[in-house]
Amino acid sequence: MKLYFNPRSRAVIAKWMLDECGVEYELVPISLEKKEQKSPEYLKINPAGKLPALVDGATRLFENAAICLYLADKFPQANLAPKLDAPERGRYLSLMVYSTSQLEPSMGDHLMKTPTLPQRGWTEFEGALNVVEQELGAGPYLFGDWFTAADVMIGSMFIWMRMFGAKPGRPTIDAYVDRLLARPKGIRMG
Amino acid sequence: MKLYFNPRSRAVIAKWMLDECGVEYELVPISLEKKEQKSPEYLKINPAGKLPALVDGATRLFENAAICLYLADKFPQANLAPKLDAPERGRYLSLMVYSTSQLEPSMGDHLMKTPTLPQRGWTEFEGALNVVEQELGAGPYLFGDWFTAADVMIGSMFIWMRMFGAKPGRPTIDAYVDRLLARPKGIRMG
Ligand SMILES: N[C@@H](CCC(=O)N[C@@H](CS)C(=O)NCC(=O)O)C(=O)O
Ligand SMILES: N[C@@H](CCC(=O)N[C@@H](CS)C(=O)NCC(=O)O)C(=O)O
Repeated sequence: MKLYFNPRSRAVIAKWMLDECGVEYELVPISLEKKEQKSPEYLKINPAGKLPALVDGATRLFENAAICLYLADKFPQANLAPKLDAPERGRYLSLMVYSTSQLEPSMGDHLMKTPTLPQRGWTEFEGALNVVEQELGAGPYLFGDWFTAADVMIGSMFIWMRMFGAKPGRPTIDAYVDRLLARPKGIRMG
Repeated sequence: MKLYFNPRSRAVIAKWMLDECGVEYELVPISLEKKEQKSPEYLKINPAGKLPALVDGATRLFENAAICLYLADKFPQANLAPKLDAPERGRYLSLMVYSTSQLEPSMGDHLMKTPTLPQRGWTEFEGALNVVEQELGAGPYLFGDWFTAADVMIGSMFIWMRMFGAKPGRPTIDAYVDRLLARPKGIRMG
């Protein structure tokens, strides 16, 4: 497997997931300064011209959430996702999609001080924090004691936020992020 | 299965998917005027307070893309998704996530005449149209002759756009949307 990577990009999320899976992979460096993410060759892999992308034999993937969904199902021995017929599967898929369809843009609005228009497919940031708090419950992870790819996706958003020197101001979420950062195979920012 | 539904909402996407699966379900009407999507009971199902949500026995789901991913895997006889070990699986997951993490907000920016900031996780709308054109190729669907849940998700965004009286101005995509709207079990807007 080849991960198209830059350490100062959201590609660190897919890398974290690969490390949690405990599998071998190759990193293909992509320079954002040189705009290599917009080269004709790279656009064939990810037509959106963004990092990350993953190539696994004849399979190509873009979008962190898709890469995490794929790896979790491909490596069941890593135990990072409920099986297709498990009762937790629906909530797992919902959190995986939610992380990027709502939490990410909502946090973006917050960090860029852009108002969240009500027609948007996501809520303002306080609403997103309520979602995460409700779904986390007593923790320590989104599925209790069970660490899953949903923690990689949801957690990464808050780890990303810390990189910008910001914290959500919710003690439960801050403690959750501390726990994630303490994982031996955890995320490493560039 | 119970679909929490309003015909004038994006819940028509999940309904379309259920109809393509050819399975039985119950519609639970949710009034947006009465803000029933923010009631304490509904927030237990979808903490984001948005439509749609799906409840299937002990499983609850929110986010259209998650509902479509779930249903496609749950009903393999409907043949709406590549199997876990199929080479198309990665691209399928990428398109499912892309539809809601990038295409939806990018189209939102376009419709609301909001500039797409470069720090965003999505491109401006022309870039998104390039992605869809590249992935559609010669069509007729995103996976050639094979209609999948990815067509439900990507196609719905453009069907939604037409509801607002807008078209992307790309003949390939317009023809694709015409094909989707002609499907017997196709989407019905409120
Ligand atoms: N939702 C996407 C976001 C990807 C994304 O926005 N990547 C940024 C880096 S953090 C990028 O490649 N930006 C360069 C560009 O847009 O030209 C994902 O999670 O994969
Ligand atoms: N990305 C979400 C978007 C859901 C969404 O934005 N739903 C709107 C209706 S189209 C809603 O419930 N809005 C009511 C509200 O936000 O209070 C999905 O696809 O499920």
